[in-house]
Amino acid sequence: MNKLCIIGLGLLGGSIGKDCIANHHVKHVIGFGRNKKTLEIAKQLNLVHDISDDYTDIQDADLIIIATPVRQIDNVLNQIKPHLSEKTIITDVGSTKYSVLTKAKNVLGKHFKNFIGSHPIAGSEKHGPEAAQECLFHDKNIIVTTHDQNTDKDINAIKSFWHLLNGKVIIMDAQQHDEIFSTVSHLPHALAMIFMNMIFQKSNKDQLMSFAASGFRDFTRIAASSPEMWKDIFIDNKDACIKDLAEFKKQIELFEKILNDEDQLENFIESASQLRKNWKY
Amino acid sequence: MNKLCIIGLGLLGGSIGKDCIANHHVKHVIGFGRNKKTLEIAKQLNLVHDISDDYTDIQDADLIIIATPVRQIDNVLNQIKPHLSEKTIITDVGSTKYSVLTKAKNVLGKHFKNFIGSHPIAGSEKHGPEAAQECLFHDKNIIVTTHDQNTDKDINAIKSFWHLLNGKVIIMDAQQHDEIFSTVSHLPHALAMIFMNMIFQKSNKDQLMSFAASGFRDFTRIAASSPEMWKDIFIDNKDACIKDLAEFKKQIELFEKILNDEDQLENFIESASQLRKNWKY
Repeated sequence: MNKLCIIGLGLLGGSIGKDCIANHHVKHVIGFGRNKKTLEIAKQLNLVHDISDDYTDIQDADLIIIATPVRQIDNVLNQIKPHLSEKTIITDVGSTKYSVLTKAKNVLGKHFKNFIGSHPIAGSEKHGPEAAQECLFHDKNIIVTTHDQNTDKDINAIKSFWHLLNGKVIIMDAQQHDEIFSTVSHLPHALAMIFMNMIFQKSNKDQLMSFAASGFRDFTRIAASSPEMWKDIFIDNKDACIKDLAEFKKQIELFEKILNDEDQLENFIESASQLRKNWKY
Repeated sequence: MNKLCIIGLGLLGGSIGKDCIANHHVKHVIGFGRNKKTLEIAKQLNLVHDISDDYTDIQDADLIIIATPVRQIDNVLNQIKPHLSEKTIITDVGSTKYSVLTKAKNVLGKHFKNFIGSHPIAGSEKHGPEAAQECLFHDKNIIVTTHDQNTDKDINAIKSFWHLLNGKVIIMDAQQHDEIFSTVSHLPHALAMIFMNMIFQKSNKDQLMSFAASGFRDFTRIAASSPEMWKDIFIDNKDACIKDLAEFKKQIELFEKILNDEDQLENFIESASQLRKNWKY
């Protein structure tokens, strides 16, 4: 590939650039973003060859990757649209896919056929360009959400790009994606953050935290995730999120009921324990 | 120490024995338990010098450690009582402390003064004698719950024992212990188990689990914990557990409300994220 433009140089955008440069997948990687300091750090860390604050520089790019928080994608699409070339494929790496697809449809006009969603399942509570890793996508699932205007050529091109980074591509419908990830990712993030805020509000929070151990450490790791990124995810996928939270509250009530029944309680824990033990990651 | 008796040879009981034998802290370690196979594995793994099914063998022990699930401690206390010597200190390693103290008071009579509770904060989702580790207690907090009949001599003896295993002893009231650990340990265990059961009930659970990644992995690790042990903990500490679950449901409702307010939502996540990032473990 000749020219790759990455807009947003946090963990995901930065890691894509780092891998592409270190492994010579792309001749010219240009980084864009709102924050000048972030861009300069990204350049110093060899996450991009060049940085720019002028979207005329996206002209003739083979691929543009939008790696901003999801609710900034709309604005980015509006800004890049006048400079898009016919051949340029556009993707994003957001954790929600349906609202982004809808925005792209509304904004991009004739270029919408060149827009394909991506969601690399390679997140971390660490964020910012300093968190970028060369092999972040190695053996990770990359969900690619296509739509009926996409050409096979472009779909194959985006698949090939993620394969270069050693990702495993899975094609999925955007709405189905959002429902699945609401349950397996957004809900646990919400629960861990809600739990930390419950502690935060306690007058003895320092004492509580001083006795927390490895179970707490792992359970709450994702509560340290980027507030800017996760605010956008929850708002963007609000309907699925509210549905899952309502279901979770019902499950808490079920648990409260069976606290009076030793056998039912043991069976409840046994099924949770077995399902978790049998899961291969 | 001359003679240590460990009743229950799972992760905690087994790790105590392993450390005491490997580092020559005790001349004679005898293991007791309901399950003959577990006892034999424990002996093979050098977690104990000898195994026994006869509680007359506890006579003249310096220390008896009850490392069974918490709701079996009552029964164990009744069985060992006739064979207790005047000098023998009795402790347990259960995750709840007040109900155990109450049971010990009811059962032990004149030997109650020799009973001191312990809770090593060194759990794991792994369980059974095969999970035993020599350095499990190294640098870990060991909560020791004393009562007004304990002598300074016995309290110092139990502190010295945990120091031998490189634990950091903290003296605490049993009820205060149960409230603190309900929030920082029992609640996250309950939430992780409730979350796994929510997934378990879904018709597409295999699909959901196939897309789960590192956030899910860490958040749910403790859901794989021992059903027998955790059933007892939840029942034993039911009041604190129900209080914390009720508070957690309220916190979910707060989160649902602020899903409509971008600034409040970002502040909510920011406080969770900061509290977690600033926590040193």
